Amino acid sequence: MRTLEWVDGALELIDQTKLPQETEVLRIERVPDLVDAIVRLSVRGAPALGVAGGYGVALAVAAHPPATDPEGFAAAVGSLREARPTAVNLARMVDRVAAVAVRDPDQALVEAERIAEEEVAASTAMGELGADLARELVGGSADADPVPLRVMTICNTGGLATVERGTALAVVQTLHERGQLAEALPLETRPLLQGGRLTTWELGRMGAPHRLLVDSAGPFLLARGAADLVVIGADRVAANGDTANKIGSFALALGARHAGVPFVVVAPESTVDLDTPTGADIEIEDRGSEEVASVRGVPVAPEGTPAVNPAFDVTPVELITALVTERRVVRYDRGHRLVGR
Amino acid sequence: MRTLEWVDGALELIDQTKLPQETEVLRIERVPDLVDAIVRLSVRGAPALGVAGGYGVALAVAAHPPATDPEGFAAAVGSLREARPTAVNLARMVDRVAAVAVRDPDQALVEAERIAEEEVAASTAMGELGADLARELVGGSADADPVPLRVMTICNTGGLATVERGTALAVVQTLHERGQLAEALPLETRPLLQGGRLTTWELGRMGAPHRLLVDSAGPFLLARGAADLVVIGADRVAANGDTANKIGSFALALGARHAGVPFVVVAPESTVDLDTPTGADIEIEDRGSEEVASVRGVPVAPEGTPAVNPAFDVTPVELITALVTERRVVRYDRGHRLVGR
Repeated sequence: MRTLEWVDGALELIDQTKLPQETEVLRIERVPDLVDAIVRLSVRGAPALGVAGGYGVALAVAAHPPATDPEGFAAAVGSLREARPTAVNLARMVDRVAAVAVRDPDQALVEAERIAEEEVAASTAMGELGADLARELVGGSADADPVPLRVMTICNTGGLATVERGTALAVVQTLHERGQLAEALPLETRPLLQGGRLTTWELGRMGAPHRLLVDSAGPFLLARGAADLVVIGADRVAANGDTANKIGSFALALGARHAGVPFVVVAPESTVDLDTPTGADIEIEDRGSEEVASVRGVPVAPEGTPAVNPAFDVTPVELITALVTERRVVRYDRGHRLVGR
Repeated sequence: MRTLEWVDGALELIDQTKLPQETEVLRIERVPDLVDAIVRLSVRGAPALGVAGGYGVALAVAAHPPATDPEGFAAAVGSLREARPTAVNLARMVDRVAAVAVRDPDQALVEAERIAEEEVAASTAMGELGADLARELVGGSADADPVPLRVMTICNTGGLATVERGTALAVVQTLHERGQLAEALPLETRPLLQGGRLTTWELGRMGAPHRLLVDSAGPFLLARGAADLVVIGADRVAANGDTANKIGSFALALGARHAGVPFVVVAPESTVDLDTPTGADIEIEDRGSEEVASVRGVPVAPEGTPAVNPAFDVTPVELITALVTERRVVRYDRGHRLVGR
């Protein structure tokens, strides 16, 4: 099932702020309501934001036909683009559908649907390529009845962040569908707990066996042989392969290296940023103290405690076994690189 | 100020379950109330439990004089011993004071006070030795005006876990008192958040500059040069130096090694267990799913989500620079060992 889709003239999406306690579907018929949903983080994840933005332009076309109300249309499109300023993919997809809408308003929804289909196809491809690679890295691919794998992961990289299946979690889902998943081991992913709240919910929905762990237990459980493979997503992949992802990914990579466990990044080609030479060129955003000092509104530190809160970290390519995108597998461990060969 | 002490015929202690939101002092006049406080985790930490147990025997003497009510006295002592079955130090100190009380009831309180003084002296010594070592490891000891240090730590190892000052946090406090602490960087320490709730509170009370971080940010911030030193406590030190401590210590040790930052264990001699040859001989207790699936009563995962919840991890001696106890510094990095030289 898709986490956001177009139904009878409106965009329906699962409100991620209510998960996991409630599975509430928002039905969005107006652009300001979509902007609001984006700002409140009811929808998040670069691919999901792109798709939502595309459908948002279709809503804008209905309310402000570009031919008769060009100013209203432009304002609506602008509000969508600006709903999450750091989300490059949102602005890109809004622009793509808006360009089509100006030429032929009837094609806006068609283009938005096309973006959704592209995302689903990309997730399916990443899942297949990643599952094949997992088998190859861990061994047993030649067996008639290969031993199921135990896969550790961090943050939420499933259908909630995309449209369906996801990136790293698509690999877990594909293994599960192939009968080759023994267990998924999601890290809870403080401070915002996307692993604990969202990934567990998605794993439950797909019927995949799983056990949750606190982030700091990941490296130790790898050392004790608890997993065969680590798969993570990516915010940005630098030209040399250094990878920015949710805070905690680097520690997990150190643990995987110490334990001799493969560490695989799964992310769409759009995440590769050739304009960023290495991880050292990536600025780390600090998201402030409040997220650390409280959990879902409950204080977990003395009032006013200052915190360091890096939103993500950078894992050097030396610690990464391979990158899987929707169209290729780059085996860093064999000396392959993103560019140049 | 002491976190537990004898005042006018009763034991007064800070109720750790109320921290950091409330600083409430419990006044305990009866053995059953102390047993209850121990069971509820109002007092925790091996040294603090030992001291509390010693004072508890003094309370038992008053209620059940061993000469006239030996059965009542034995029952009270037994209830103290059993209040936390895994706390070896509690039983040991209860037995020590009870043995004195049977010979001379008037000496029970004297013996309990002696235990408290021994703990304070040990904490003071660990702080001094650790601060000297920190200076030596990081450099600048010969300077007239050495550069202040940035020290990362995990869990709660301060006065709340002992009586005053603590173990690893005593090192931080001593550096602060010497004007050589730039900043303490405590990890929050999921699942029970002793770092976020208790260590921050203690650092605030001593006026030491500090910033809190989520556990998974520790290794990455070390890689980015955010700290000069890591100090941790210990649950148990095996004969070869492998060290069991709160979950997250191992990941931090991997981060310290990757960054080339010294990683120092600070713990009393009573923590060294020569009957345990190596870390592989230490069984890891799993504390169940509930602590992971909720934070201070708030659910952070779908209901019924299973979790892996190792209470502590084991850091191999190869990743540890040195052990500091109340009477020696063992430089593992120079090939020194706990026994044999």
